[in-house]
Amino acid sequence: MKDIRVGMIGTRFMGRAHSNAFINVGHFFPVPLHPVLMAACGRNETHLDKFASRFDYRSTETSWEQLVSRDDIDLVDICTPNATHLPIALEAARHGKDILCEKPIAMNAEEAFQMYAAAEAAGVTHMVAFNYRRVPAIKLAKQMIDQGLIGRIYHFNAVYYQDWLADPRSPFVWRNDVNQAGSGAHGDLNAHTVDLARYLIGEFEAVNGTQDVFIKERPKEDGTMGQVTVDDSTEFLARFREGAVGVFMATRLATGRKNSLRFEVFGSKGSLAFNLERMNELAFYSADDPDDRQGFRTILVTAKSHPYLSAWWPPGHIIGWEHTFIHEIYDLLVAIESHQAAVPDFRDGWKCQQVLDAVRDSSLNGQWVTLDDN
Amino acid sequence: MKDIRVGMIGTRFMGRAHSNAFINVGHFFPVPLHPVLMAACGRNETHLDKFASRFDYRSTETSWEQLVSRDDIDLVDICTPNATHLPIALEAARHGKDILCEKPIAMNAEEAFQMYAAAEAAGVTHMVAFNYRRVPAIKLAKQMIDQGLIGRIYHFNAVYYQDWLADPRSPFVWRNDVNQAGSGAHGDLNAHTVDLARYLIGEFEAVNGTQDVFIKERPKEDGTMGQVTVDDSTEFLARFREGAVGVFMATRLATGRKNSLRFEVFGSKGSLAFNLERMNELAFYSADDPDDRQGFRTILVTAKSHPYLSAWWPPGHIIGWEHTFIHEIYDLLVAIESHQAAVPDFRDGWKCQQVLDAVRDSSLNGQWVTLDDN
Amino acid sequence: MKDIRVGMIGTRFMGRAHSNAFINVGHFFPVPLHPVLMAACGRNETHLDKFASRFDYRSTETSWEQLVSRDDIDLVDICTPNATHLPIALEAARHGKDILCEKPIAMNAEEAFQMYAAAEAAGVTHMVAFNYRRVPAIKLAKQMIDQGLIGRIYHFNAVYYQDWLADPRSPFVWRNDVNQAGSGAHGDLNAHTVDLARYLIGEFEAVNGTQDVFIKERPKEDGTMGQVTVDDSTEFLARFREGAVGVFMATRLATGRKNSLRFEVFGSKGSLAFNLERMNELAFYSADDPDDRQGFRTILVTAKSHPYLSAWWPPGHIIGWEHTFIHEIYDLLVAIESHQAAVPDFRDGWKCQQVLDAVRDSSLNGQWVTLDDN
Amino acid sequence: MKDIRVGMIGTRFMGRAHSNAFINVGHFFPVPLHPVLMAACGRNETHLDKFASRFDYRSTETSWEQLVSRDDIDLVDICTPNATHLPIALEAARHGKDILCEKPIAMNAEEAFQMYAAAEAAGVTHMVAFNYRRVPAIKLAKQMIDQGLIGRIYHFNAVYYQDWLADPRSPFVWRNDVNQAGSGAHGDLNAHTVDLARYLIGEFEAVNGTQDVFIKERPKEDGTMGQVTVDDSTEFLARFREGAVGVFMATRLATGRKNSLRFEVFGSKGSLAFNLERMNELAFYSADDPDDRQGFRTILVTAKSHPYLSAWWPPGHIIGWEHTFIHEIYDLLVAIESHQAAVPDFRDGWKCQQVLDAVRDSSLNGQWVTLDDN
Repeated sequence: MKDIRVGMIGTRFMGRAHSNAFINVGHFFPVPLHPVLMAACGRNETHLDKFASRFDYRSTETSWEQLVSRDDIDLVDICTPNATHLPIALEAARHGKDILCEKPIAMNAEEAFQMYAAAEAAGVTHMVAFNYRRVPAIKLAKQMIDQGLIGRIYHFNAVYYQDWLADPRSPFVWRNDVNQAGSGAHGDLNAHTVDLARYLIGEFEAVNGTQDVFIKERPKEDGTMGQVTVDDSTEFLARFREGAVGVFMATRLATGRKNSLRFEVFGSKGSLAFNLERMNELAFYSADDPDDRQGFRTILVTAKSHPYLSAWWPPGHIIGWEHTFIHEIYDLLVAIESHQAAVPDFRDGWKCQQVLDAVRDSSLNGQWVTLDDN
Repeated sequence: MKDIRVGMIGTRFMGRAHSNAFINVGHFFPVPLHPVLMAACGRNETHLDKFASRFDYRSTETSWEQLVSRDDIDLVDICTPNATHLPIALEAARHGKDILCEKPIAMNAEEAFQMYAAAEAAGVTHMVAFNYRRVPAIKLAKQMIDQGLIGRIYHFNAVYYQDWLADPRSPFVWRNDVNQAGSGAHGDLNAHTVDLARYLIGEFEAVNGTQDVFIKERPKEDGTMGQVTVDDSTEFLARFREGAVGVFMATRLATGRKNSLRFEVFGSKGSLAFNLERMNELAFYSADDPDDRQGFRTILVTAKSHPYLSAWWPPGHIIGWEHTFIHEIYDLLVAIESHQAAVPDFRDGWKCQQVLDAVRDSSLNGQWVTLDDN
Repeated sequence: MKDIRVGMIGTRFMGRAHSNAFINVGHFFPVPLHPVLMAACGRNETHLDKFASRFDYRSTETSWEQLVSRDDIDLVDICTPNATHLPIALEAARHGKDILCEKPIAMNAEEAFQMYAAAEAAGVTHMVAFNYRRVPAIKLAKQMIDQGLIGRIYHFNAVYYQDWLADPRSPFVWRNDVNQAGSGAHGDLNAHTVDLARYLIGEFEAVNGTQDVFIKERPKEDGTMGQVTVDDSTEFLARFREGAVGVFMATRLATGRKNSLRFEVFGSKGSLAFNLERMNELAFYSADDPDDRQGFRTILVTAKSHPYLSAWWPPGHIIGWEHTFIHEIYDLLVAIESHQAAVPDFRDGWKCQQVLDAVRDSSLNGQWVTLDDN
Repeated sequence: MKDIRVGMIGTRFMGRAHSNAFINVGHFFPVPLHPVLMAACGRNETHLDKFASRFDYRSTETSWEQLVSRDDIDLVDICTPNATHLPIALEAARHGKDILCEKPIAMNAEEAFQMYAAAEAAGVTHMVAFNYRRVPAIKLAKQMIDQGLIGRIYHFNAVYYQDWLADPRSPFVWRNDVNQAGSGAHGDLNAHTVDLARYLIGEFEAVNGTQDVFIKERPKEDGTMGQVTVDDSTEFLARFREGAVGVFMATRLATGRKNSLRFEVFGSKGSLAFNLERMNELAFYSADDPDDRQGFRTILVTAKSHPYLSAWWPPGHIIGWEHTFIHEIYDLLVAIESHQAAVPDFRDGWKCQQVLDAVRDSSLNGQWVTLDDN
């Protein structure tokens, strides 16, 4: 089997999750390419060495410019803060590397489009790491919608609740800084639900939202206070081209909800509900069931017939959050080898970013913002 | 509409629940008889007067002998401690009264049979107040089993958890005294699940159980300690004539479980699960659903097509525990007016008591006890 | 005990629920007044007679004008379609009757204010039947918020899902007609959640919403199609004076959700979650619990120490939807007898209606609408 | 870091799960030894090669005798059918290999003791793969019990439900054959819950159970029928030395329950509940909470302060079933390197087997069987 040599930029949360995926995907899935962890790149050398050693990277770089120009790298994996996605991606594309990029794809739609255009122009494979499309329960939801089991869709409601900023004493981090993160809960969390809405329901037509910073400053390590310049929460209403109405909400102040991405789809024939904290389950209601025994059924999405599950364990043996990345990498490798577009690609990243930007604009001007039909 | 004049014996928990049912049944159900609360009977005159006034009883009696002999009483409702069921029922039957009796029907199967024989000989209508047969979700379960949706039944598991005796400082009450109560958790709680098993699955063949008193004495009001002479918990294994295996457990020391009667039925084609603390719901799994969307569905048993529900509110408006008694009284009134046997009747009370006695015997001798096939 | 003579206008869903409450409140609560069901009023004589007979009303009227002018009526209970609330209430006030009025109080805020002013001027007791304030779990939530257990409140999210219009074939009814109902899901369902938000969190500052009619016409009994002139669903964002942000949604097309009023409150110290379909439960999360054992706890709100529960059954024996009306009537009787304002009163009905109107306005002009601070 | 060279015997379900654990443990945990997958052993050469290739084993063997005698193997991992555990373990011990053995440890307690004695005599480290002790929620439960949060324990109830044999058409496999498997649901499933009971509650005193074969024969690949010689289900009552009472049940015919190991612990001060299908959650009830806000809280066991979790992802990002093996291997490596006994070791395997044997005996003779106090 041919190798695919991976250059990983970013060594923290996402760097670990992606590395784990590259290592394990071949143990369970019939990969067409064999991932080799060729180089890891980070700025903190001590941490970088520890990371590279942990995951058996063959080399390290402290300059991403250096990494993306190396001849022995086939695929660049961008797991860095959002502000760096654009320059890295452009340079990687210029060097003809395939690219996997963490979400949100960029600081704004303009950047996202640049990345998309550059990757397309370079003819490389590009993917945005919306890993939740690879939750088996969500892929099953997609299949059921496509099969018509839900009928005409009336409502798509989604929340993404976290609580790590609910305590005013939580320390200031890069994710609180607009210059590094672009936005707060919105880009971090709504990016996921907006992508899932596009995946499951279709394109957005218009949005109307509001953004808040509840806690204006947070303690820094040096004892001073850092100004929070991104949203703690963003809520918005949405209309979809196909006629559905949406309600979205993301917050990092939902005390007690740790990683609760939940959505509900209501249609004329049935409904679906999902919660990431119980990601092996999908709730499904069918109005086609006999009248006296209708109810939301909890599908434990661990059967051989469920998406991705034939690769894993017997029914009832649940998988974890990190498995979504293994599925993602598998699909990416298949796309690369078969020279087909990866899904979701940078265009999806750009379309998502357009929606996020529109919500931000609507929050500023207090009015609905219509999405371009492009 | 003809009146049916009720004589209520017992003015506490069950006396209140039954009185409420007699008052309200006609407001919602097409009753064939009009209940009149003619007389209430209790030993504590102050409490009796208050009770009678609350529920608008027309008269009171402090002697049950007096009450059951009154000409203006048609139906005697026995809501007193278990030790008194036998004498009251025999005397009521002798006076030709229809009889509703709380569960467990008697102190033992011999007593129960006496009651059954006397009521039959007198030609009166007799019913045991196993009110949980009238939970709509449970009646729906029965319908689904009868329709064959569950297939061959392999397992019937039931627990009845309460926790009001989990704290060793909980005071001594009549329910802790074998002379008044006959047994503890066993007769109080297992009586319900044994009856439900008979209702849903069929007759018992053999049982093997164990009984425990974890807390041997409890404080009395006068400062002395009362000896606990009934079981805090009783567990038993069971075999059913039709081939299913059962596991039962009742305890009053299940800290945190307030009134948690739960059962599960597993069959070759499907399964059912129920929990009294969420009594408006029934969980149903069908192996006939398409393979990739099988799951336990939570039926919210509040549709017009569900048992008893057309009399109540629109779908989703749940009913409470006490409604089971209203349903019970409705069914009783229909039975009386139509001269058909009430269900469950004293024979059912006796059959249930046989099982309870057999469990007690098995606990004493450490061996399986076979039920007579009578 | 003094009688309070009730004149009931409306004999359908709410007429039944209120009648049941008047009959039973005194059986369980220490009422200061004895309700007498003096007269029932409806337009369909056949149905009226059946209703009056079922609930033992002493007389009937087919003209509400007649009923509110009767000398033997103390309290007028308005359970009719929304368009009739104003004239009935004004006339009832003019005759010095105490008034209980179903929600939404009126067709718009102007009407609501008229009713409030008239009732105040007449010096009568007035209450709006926001019965969900009397769900024990919700009253407990209020107590916990007031005790500071939730801390500073960041978010209040509420949905009210029903599904009786999800099927396009569902027949046209008065609730689909703007002239009779004023609005659809909005006035019917959001009225409840707006009132609960005011009760739990405080006054609204501004709102921004959208309303939809997904199914424009529905079949009438006569074979023709009725034009749906009210919203199937209404979603809106909200800001509260105290700084919280809110997201609200009501729909009658949430397939599978029968009566699912759910809300979540997220604060700096804790959180609460509630679902009307499991109305005996309240979920509570405390950030004050030890770090490794924090979690949402499901409080089964059936203990003697819980609001209203000491009147009912032992712990774990749940109550039903209709009990909220019994609690409401109890509180109303206490207010009347003690000459204190009922809660919520017509002012609350008016304040709620202001919010509903503002949402409607925002939907029309696509912008935020600020609430007056009056 | 020193290598530890692993010889894996068995290449199916458990072989895959263990291999995955050896590969990944060092990526997340501070292992004191570096596992090297030195040799894989299986009888089917085609499958063996595929397996070895998938998981990068350096060599293969088709004879386990050959594997355990190799000088370049430090640790023998036994993942074969139960009947082979004894000979492999004895031979591995004779060659001075450390041993990890799948559960149940042996065909009966005599075999188990032989294995324990041999491993002790050889001075090797030995562990039984009761991986569920390494579920973070279960380890947290253990910590809470040890801290006294549950108080005196009254009840330990456990079920282990699977459904892969519910359909009579499910094919005959080695697990249905007593000569290969020793027992059915009992050794496969009750082994886990018996071990967890010992871990959480302490030693068994006596048991009384029953075993059933509901479906006597199943189709074989060659078209003939295979005789099922192991139990489809086993239920038993238990008494613990410390005074608690237990109820256990294992079945492979629980239609709809895929891998539902559930237990409940009820004590004088609190309670715990767990379900393997939602293995990232632990339900905890504390009677020490204020009276009006007691309830079962769902602890999402994903915080840094929870067992094993600091090695993984941020709070709310759940782990999967296979992670329990990674935790297990980590603990095993620490034990080996520190020359301390592994937990659970072969003595635990033997003690568990004694209980299983006693249940089998009680099922045969219909009486309680007392466990030796050794």
